[in-house]
Amino acid sequence: MSLRDEALKLHKENGGKIEIKSKVNVKTREDLSLAYTPGVAEPCKEIKNDPSTVYEYTSKKNMVAVITDGSAVLGLGNIGPLAAIPVMEGKSILLKEFANIDSIPICLDTQDPEEIIKTVKYLAPSFGGINLEDISAPRCVTIERRLIDELDIPVFHDDQHGTAIIVSAALINCCRLTNKKISDLTIVISGTGAAGSSIARMLKKLGVGKIYVYDKNGVVDIKKYDQYDFLIKELLDQHVYDTKEDHNGTLESLLEGAHMFVGVSVGNLVTKEMIAKMAKDPFVFAMANPVPEITPDLAKEGGAYVIGTGRSDYPNQINNVLAFPGIFRGALDCRAKKINEDMKLAAAYAIANIIKDEELTPEYIVPSPFDPRVVNAVSKAVIDAAIKSNVA
Amino acid sequence: MSLRDEALKLHKENGGKIEIKSKVNVKTREDLSLAYTPGVAEPCKEIKNDPSTVYEYTSKKNMVAVITDGSAVLGLGNIGPLAAIPVMEGKSILLKEFANIDSIPICLDTQDPEEIIKTVKYLAPSFGGINLEDISAPRCVTIERRLIDELDIPVFHDDQHGTAIIVSAALINCCRLTNKKISDLTIVISGTGAAGSSIARMLKKLGVGKIYVYDKNGVVDIKKYDQYDFLIKELLDQHVYDTKEDHNGTLESLLEGAHMFVGVSVGNLVTKEMIAKMAKDPFVFAMANPVPEITPDLAKEGGAYVIGTGRSDYPNQINNVLAFPGIFRGALDCRAKKINEDMKLAAAYAIANIIKDEELTPEYIVPSPFDPRVVNAVSKAVIDAAIKSNVA
Repeated sequence: MSLRDEALKLHKENGGKIEIKSKVNVKTREDLSLAYTPGVAEPCKEIKNDPSTVYEYTSKKNMVAVITDGSAVLGLGNIGPLAAIPVMEGKSILLKEFANIDSIPICLDTQDPEEIIKTVKYLAPSFGGINLEDISAPRCVTIERRLIDELDIPVFHDDQHGTAIIVSAALINCCRLTNKKISDLTIVISGTGAAGSSIARMLKKLGVGKIYVYDKNGVVDIKKYDQYDFLIKELLDQHVYDTKEDHNGTLESLLEGAHMFVGVSVGNLVTKEMIAKMAKDPFVFAMANPVPEITPDLAKEGGAYVIGTGRSDYPNQINNVLAFPGIFRGALDCRAKKINEDMKLAAAYAIANIIKDEELTPEYIVPSPFDPRVVNAVSKAVIDAAIKSNVA
Repeated sequence: MSLRDEALKLHKENGGKIEIKSKVNVKTREDLSLAYTPGVAEPCKEIKNDPSTVYEYTSKKNMVAVITDGSAVLGLGNIGPLAAIPVMEGKSILLKEFANIDSIPICLDTQDPEEIIKTVKYLAPSFGGINLEDISAPRCVTIERRLIDELDIPVFHDDQHGTAIIVSAALINCCRLTNKKISDLTIVISGTGAAGSSIARMLKKLGVGKIYVYDKNGVVDIKKYDQYDFLIKELLDQHVYDTKEDHNGTLESLLEGAHMFVGVSVGNLVTKEMIAKMAKDPFVFAMANPVPEITPDLAKEGGAYVIGTGRSDYPNQINNVLAFPGIFRGALDCRAKKINEDMKLAAAYAIANIIKDEELTPEYIVPSPFDPRVVNAVSKAVIDAAIKSNVA
């Protein structure tokens, strides 16, 4: 059976992927009188008197809303809220499986950023955290920032930060492996969307020397400043994106002499000749799905030393599941009011440090998505960082 | 341990009452490739091409949103969305236990009817049905009507219709037991809120001869028409509420000669002397919680023949759990676009007919909330009515 048929069968036979389970018995009148009327009035009154007890008496503390508007689902584009449900249910079961977090898909029938912001704020009382998902850039950045500012529960857009955290972990380990200094590196990012811009921010925060970026409109260049959306402008203003004097508008000219390529764009964009023009032994993370910017085989032929993709059938899979379960677990457990840059960076270091010095190889730069140590290490690091940065 | 302490302990020890469960395995890379990327793209594409397949490939078909604004929670009043969560979780576990329906509490941080309507419409894609709960009257009526009109999934406000359905079932069985004709009866309802107004509508549809109503402002009287809210006016206009010539403004004068009292108001409102002035062998359903309008003992002393309350420690408990699980089960199973009056009436007859002629007694007028036959009988009746009335 093809992957397509198997995937359809799995979804159809089970009628979706999630269900609700009661944590208490409701078999007898007595059960009912405690879990429902009249007993249920007691926790209600407690919460009314002291709203913080909602974290004791309800499921809020472990309940996350997985929210999308269906505008940028996987590589499928703007397929709308109904067609996005299977992906959100997938996220939900990953949160449960990897971090024992309860979550529910909410696919919104609006793509207006202000309406999305307002709706999520209205929904917030029932939830301990908000996982935004598959919302198109640059709207997703506005929506996430506003919600982080305006809500007192953690809000996290995984498409922005998930990949950024794992790429950061990969970079940390590439430097450990090769004894290179992060500040000496020049990195080229292909893609300035949700993931690309968050990667740029995070790499800058990690101390990367120079960051050049490229997208479907070409090399991002200060000379074309007025043509960009607010997100690219902001990153240029903050000197996150560097601009290169001697490029000729091509990705090839941008890559010349660079130490690392980070692709979150489209397949088959990079040739082995381009890799060959990079600095010696470069790191190539080509994460477009399902077809990477360059296949690992070609990257190797071009001279890449460390190669990572988004795929599970090659070494070094850059998989968000390494980050978001532990990040939410940590944020929920310490009741963090937000997930800030310090917490994300702490997660990156925690993921990197799962691999011991003596285990590190070019083929083992990031842990396996199924490594059971990851979620605990990440959540612990996130809690520490939340406390240190005063958001918990 | 007191009920209060036991109820608090139950909620605290379990950290709320609901959790999410995955219906599929996510233990291996292969599991992940079917339930998440890349396989999950397949059901997404199917749904994009044919939106009706969302009912095959996702949890939508069995997923209900239990939505409140916290404005009228139990008898506690406007305690807000956070303090309402325990009640909504209770509803959720009842839907699961009684009808295997998955549902999730959503407690909204707005009490503006237009904002609630808009928000519920935005949320609708992920859900197969909407259970509105504990929203104050008369706002709840506007909100429910608008949502029924504007959404293509069933919307049901249990506080309005749940009690109405069970009271109707009780009335049907009172008449079966006593060989009285519904059209000959005069019924007095105390309470013109969410439940009271829906009860009046439903009893009228059942064919009750005269319906008088009373609320905290006194006897509802056409002479005071201009003082009423839209809901009372509407029911007066539609000749659902009758007005009585010879009342003196008291409940006592309204009850004189009536055959049935239906209380959805406040405790200790009715005396045994009032019951004694009703027609011979009256039916008294005093459902205020936790203290009924008149205790069963006093009602009996006053001459009541059939007595029901909302409490589980007396015979004939009028418990909404007899209706809403089967109603949603039926509506979801036949993908009804709405839950209409025919379906509610069918549910009332189905509940009544659980009890065979030879089993009927004044103490056994409605089935036990735990009678396992109820949910199937109700859902079957609801499906039949939905098909006959062209909403499925």
